[in-house]
Amino acid sequence: MGNCCERARDFFGPQKNTNVRVSLPAVCFVWQIAMIVLFGVFVRYNPESSARWVETRRQLNISSDIENDFYFRYPSFQDVHVMIFVGFGYLMTFLKRYSFSGVGFNFLIASFGLQWALLMQGWFHSLDPATGKILIGVENLINADFCCAGSLIAYGALLGKVSPVQLLVLTLFGVTLFAVEEYIILDLLHCRDAGGSMVIHAFGGYYGLAISWVLYRPNLHLSKRLHGSVYHSDVFAMIGTLFLWMFWPSFNSAITDHGDGQHRAAINTYLALASSVLTTVAISSMSQKRGKLDMVHIQNATLAGGVAMGTSAEFMISPYGSLIVGFCCGIISTFGYLYISPWLERVLKLQDTCGVHNLHALPGMLGGFIGAIVAAAATTEVYGEEGLINTFDFEGKFANRSPGTQGGFQAAGTCVSIAFGLVGGVIVGFILRFPIWGDPADDNCFDDEAYWEVPEDEETLPPVLEYNNHMIHKHQEISESNFSVEQS
Amino acid sequence: MGNCCERARDFFGPQKNTNVRVSLPAVCFVWQIAMIVLFGVFVRYNPESSARWVETRRQLNISSDIENDFYFRYPSFQDVHVMIFVGFGYLMTFLKRYSFSGVGFNFLIASFGLQWALLMQGWFHSLDPATGKILIGVENLINADFCCAGSLIAYGALLGKVSPVQLLVLTLFGVTLFAVEEYIILDLLHCRDAGGSMVIHAFGGYYGLAISWVLYRPNLHLSKRLHGSVYHSDVFAMIGTLFLWMFWPSFNSAITDHGDGQHRAAINTYLALASSVLTTVAISSMSQKRGKLDMVHIQNATLAGGVAMGTSAEFMISPYGSLIVGFCCGIISTFGYLYISPWLERVLKLQDTCGVHNLHALPGMLGGFIGAIVAAAATTEVYGEEGLINTFDFEGKFANRSPGTQGGFQAAGTCVSIAFGLVGGVIVGFILRFPIWGDPADDNCFDDEAYWEVPEDEETLPPVLEYNNHMIHKHQEISESNFSVEQS
Amino acid sequence: MGNCCERARDFFGPQKNTNVRVSLPAVCFVWQIAMIVLFGVFVRYNPESSARWVETRRQLNISSDIENDFYFRYPSFQDVHVMIFVGFGYLMTFLKRYSFSGVGFNFLIASFGLQWALLMQGWFHSLDPATGKILIGVENLINADFCCAGSLIAYGALLGKVSPVQLLVLTLFGVTLFAVEEYIILDLLHCRDAGGSMVIHAFGGYYGLAISWVLYRPNLHLSKRLHGSVYHSDVFAMIGTLFLWMFWPSFNSAITDHGDGQHRAAINTYLALASSVLTTVAISSMSQKRGKLDMVHIQNATLAGGVAMGTSAEFMISPYGSLIVGFCCGIISTFGYLYISPWLERVLKLQDTCGVHNLHALPGMLGGFIGAIVAAAATTEVYGEEGLINTFDFEGKFANRSPGTQGGFQAAGTCVSIAFGLVGGVIVGFILRFPIWGDPADDNCFDDEAYWEVPEDEETLPPVLEYNNHMIHKHQEISESNFSVEQS
Repeated sequence: MGNCCERARDFFGPQKNTNVRVSLPAVCFVWQIAMIVLFGVFVRYNPESSARWVETRRQLNISSDIENDFYFRYPSFQDVHVMIFVGFGYLMTFLKRYSFSGVGFNFLIASFGLQWALLMQGWFHSLDPATGKILIGVENLINADFCCAGSLIAYGALLGKVSPVQLLVLTLFGVTLFAVEEYIILDLLHCRDAGGSMVIHAFGGYYGLAISWVLYRPNLHLSKRLHGSVYHSDVFAMIGTLFLWMFWPSFNSAITDHGDGQHRAAINTYLALASSVLTTVAISSMSQKRGKLDMVHIQNATLAGGVAMGTSAEFMISPYGSLIVGFCCGIISTFGYLYISPWLERVLKLQDTCGVHNLHALPGMLGGFIGAIVAAAATTEVYGEEGLINTFDFEGKFANRSPGTQGGFQAAGTCVSIAFGLVGGVIVGFILRFPIWGDPADDNCFDDEAYWEVPEDEETLPPVLEYNNHMIHKHQEISESNFSVEQS
Repeated sequence: MGNCCERARDFFGPQKNTNVRVSLPAVCFVWQIAMIVLFGVFVRYNPESSARWVETRRQLNISSDIENDFYFRYPSFQDVHVMIFVGFGYLMTFLKRYSFSGVGFNFLIASFGLQWALLMQGWFHSLDPATGKILIGVENLINADFCCAGSLIAYGALLGKVSPVQLLVLTLFGVTLFAVEEYIILDLLHCRDAGGSMVIHAFGGYYGLAISWVLYRPNLHLSKRLHGSVYHSDVFAMIGTLFLWMFWPSFNSAITDHGDGQHRAAINTYLALASSVLTTVAISSMSQKRGKLDMVHIQNATLAGGVAMGTSAEFMISPYGSLIVGFCCGIISTFGYLYISPWLERVLKLQDTCGVHNLHALPGMLGGFIGAIVAAAATTEVYGEEGLINTFDFEGKFANRSPGTQGGFQAAGTCVSIAFGLVGGVIVGFILRFPIWGDPADDNCFDDEAYWEVPEDEETLPPVLEYNNHMIHKHQEISESNFSVEQS
Repeated sequence: MGNCCERARDFFGPQKNTNVRVSLPAVCFVWQIAMIVLFGVFVRYNPESSARWVETRRQLNISSDIENDFYFRYPSFQDVHVMIFVGFGYLMTFLKRYSFSGVGFNFLIASFGLQWALLMQGWFHSLDPATGKILIGVENLINADFCCAGSLIAYGALLGKVSPVQLLVLTLFGVTLFAVEEYIILDLLHCRDAGGSMVIHAFGGYYGLAISWVLYRPNLHLSKRLHGSVYHSDVFAMIGTLFLWMFWPSFNSAITDHGDGQHRAAINTYLALASSVLTTVAISSMSQKRGKLDMVHIQNATLAGGVAMGTSAEFMISPYGSLIVGFCCGIISTFGYLYISPWLERVLKLQDTCGVHNLHALPGMLGGFIGAIVAAAATTEVYGEEGLINTFDFEGKFANRSPGTQGGFQAAGTCVSIAFGLVGGVIVGFILRFPIWGDPADDNCFDDEAYWEVPEDEETLPPVLEYNNHMIHKHQEISESNFSVEQS
């Protein structure tokens, strides 16, 4: 029994080994080959990206190439792509010695995740019933990027505490869970969630938090020396913040309806984000001695308005409604960083490196419920007869759904996304506790040295030379003041 | 009398207090709430962003969603958005210890400014006479970003010397003044100024310079230790430079006429900027010992061509004309950094941290006059009958205006923008001298410590450990050589 | 004879002088003036960017302004523009003390190169036979940026070892050679090469390698102290990597056919790049002790998939085909960094600072041959009758060319590009050996000090003050303990 305990302790125990020389290449190779095989079996171009488009165009009587969906969505796609790789990536460079991992592992897992997402989402949404093939176009690429975002958010909660292999596992399951909850929410419940308050942010946030809760490290304080930023790493992180902030209107409008749908979603998001900035600054300043601002708040809570508009951006929430959403979420998110995160860590034993609870989980959940309220309040006076149908897709078997009912389903969808995040996260968390994934020991977290060849000396030779000269000069002064230095 | 003087001196005096714990949150909250109320009363979606678009489209017999203005302007809008937040923001990170404020306060004031600009510009340009509502779409967002640019330029002159509260006040008045001068120049004088040489750059530049002149700090040299760059802060600043430089074609073409107007404005700006780079490098190299380049010039003067093409980019200035404009402005702007700025500081007591005189005020003014000349030289041979009317909007009550007359009005418009900048700036400058805004003392400028929680140690533990070991080793050497240190 | 040898040795000898105060301004001024004159003689707006567009539109019966080529290509153009200036520029900031030159000289030579490219490519491709003028539009801007890329790639091989004057000379010849080989490959051989595997990457890579071979520096090890990265310079370089990686789909689709051509090229490139990331990580991890990743690989080899898809992105290579290309090229490129580059340096005396052989030359060549194979395998079943004709442009005098023949010509085109690169590079290399260009001595390479005013102290005053205080404190401790330090 004691023996068994010991073995169990050994198995889950503290003797960590960050050597991933076998596991990381193996996972990368095997999974990439699997992707190639599955793509070979399943994935083809859709009619708009196929060389037969010229024939399709004639059949559908489309007058110009400009009406190819590519031209409606490609600029937004590229903005979303920047958010995924530079936005999320650089936002996670804020730690003093974890910038390589922040931006590098983000790059790795998003590159895997988008391939797996094309398959998973394709099976649910883009399957050609005649041939059994997934037909892809630019909208699939956007959705694949969105799907990765869920796992990248989860990475934020775990930043510094997991290995790249764990992250790939997290992404494999994260993308799978995402595709299923998205299918339930968007197709079965027929919710609208263009910018993913529910399916991306609430899900991704709670998924990461649940994993982090299972992976709780009681002795994380041993890595405290590296658990913070330096001046330049904060400036790097602002690159991530700003690219997320600037391109969020594209994120929320990328897959909304052509025309007014994209137009309105961009405007609403733009306004909510602007409003978030002012309330974040206000609360941050109020909370500190002498009104000083905290970079953590500015880097994160300013984005809360975009998260919270993910569902309702395409609705007629009206410009002042967007401002109100941003106003409240900037406050709530900053309060989260000030009070909720410390409380979660102290009481719930939940270590959340980037504060994804305050930036994604909570505003995402709020965004889901805001969307429910705005949907329930929709009227034909505001939307117009056709506008209401278009905006909420009240067609086919949902033709008779009323805005009020829609609001109820939107709220239900939010709960589904949270449930998927929490339950899925706990399960994946236990999988990630197996001691085979190469995660770092408690005193070795937040350190690039574990997984990267880090350049030896931080500062370069010229200053070093100057420094040496400076030292020599100092010593000469010392020696002149009456003692003898033999060598230095 | 002496008592009165003393009281006045005390009132405007040197005993500065950078505590903004009350004023900053108060301003942010009150103003943001005011925005919400005003948006609630005034701002609605325009027909292209409303859910009723499907009806409008049918009424106007528009064949496809792709003809929604969103698709003409959204990619340019996003580029402009990047210029405002990353371009201006990172350009102002060049100081060694003011990067947080450079990028952070830029973020704050642009976020406020764009909301206020939507209202101010909306009242002048987008008011629906039937309902008294401002109807907004993507073009309003672009114009709001443009309007912020004026105040951000002014920030450049004041960088390091003002508090965030002062910046918000500066932005409130700056946006207001901008909207009025823009109305006078574009509507009353019927000038063309798509990229804002006059309304943005000349106005913003002189506005900032006038404020800086009023806020002259005779003892600014006390902060000299922080008034410069370090290696990495210069590399950060180049991010700002490049995003401004690359996206300037979008800036100048964002609100020009659909079709050839946007197309031509992008080409002209692209060429002028390329030309500026070569002459900036040439003058910078000539001015330094051994032909070394100065980062200040490369970061700033390379952009002068874009500023100077703000008015004439949409005209038929012809490709070589654009190159000539860039050629001259690269030279002039670099000379400005070399000779005019030091002269302004010495003689006019004008401290201009980023040299906005050389990058915005002067090239903006030149751009206004270049626009006047190019407009005056327009002929139907070059533009075509309809092209001339479209380009200069010779319609309605301006149908009979000749190109020559237009040139005169363009020149007048330039003078109006400068006058607004100078007079407005002096007034706002005196407002900003009230000792209630929390600006730093003369020996405390250019320092993020005043308004930010700055991470304690610049360099990270691992080097510090190495450093300590190194020191220990040194001390052992010293102790081994057995001597006493009195002082060092 | 000996005298002659000596004179020759002196002429090509080691006594280097990096003073470019005369040569750099002279070259910039003279060449920029030449550009203005040549643009004045040759360059005009094309019908889509001219104010007469409204007339053209009516004549051609084009229904809407949105069908102006500007709206098909401008978003892609801006992405390409970002790749050229931020992508290539920041990728070359990885050296610890050569970031100014990396991003700054990239800025300079691209700004010159794009002007010269508009002329050279214009003479070959956009000459109006009626007037003898080059008529330019957005597609010319994209092609000019592409053309610069060839020379920027060559700069990568030479990074740290050449002067800005040499780089301008390299660009002048590089653009010229590019335009000629492009004309031969695209027009005479009628190859397809939308993303430039052959004309850009293979040419640019071998051009740079050949120059570097001629400029071999046997004593480069004397600059070894600066030949490496520091922590933050690697984070800067990742900005370049990511912007290249994210926007590569735009690069490969920017000038492909409207509609499905652009759509498909973007999808294929997106997939190939994602696949490259996983295999790069796998090989990088396998090659290092404890599976640690090497930033050099992550910064570069992850992009190999984009290079290799340059030719075949617009073909019906199918999604899994793209994944396979990325898979293989990620492996090959990383192996290149591990084994081929050291071998080239040891055996061929070829110093390749950025490893352009592994990122551009080799994947570019492979991309050319992959394109040949994919073209040869094209069938009407897959492409459709019209699709095949559109994709390969089998029109006019090439109407009877079969896919098989096309494949042969594609392969021939690849060889032409390599030949141009190698022969042109050797010739230009010898030109660059003249001792008049101001290149640095062997012990002075990789150092910004040679060409830039570098800020004096790396780290800022506050830490220095703290440091001094710290030192004083230490010394006091030392003196107080009256000089017996055993250990500490």
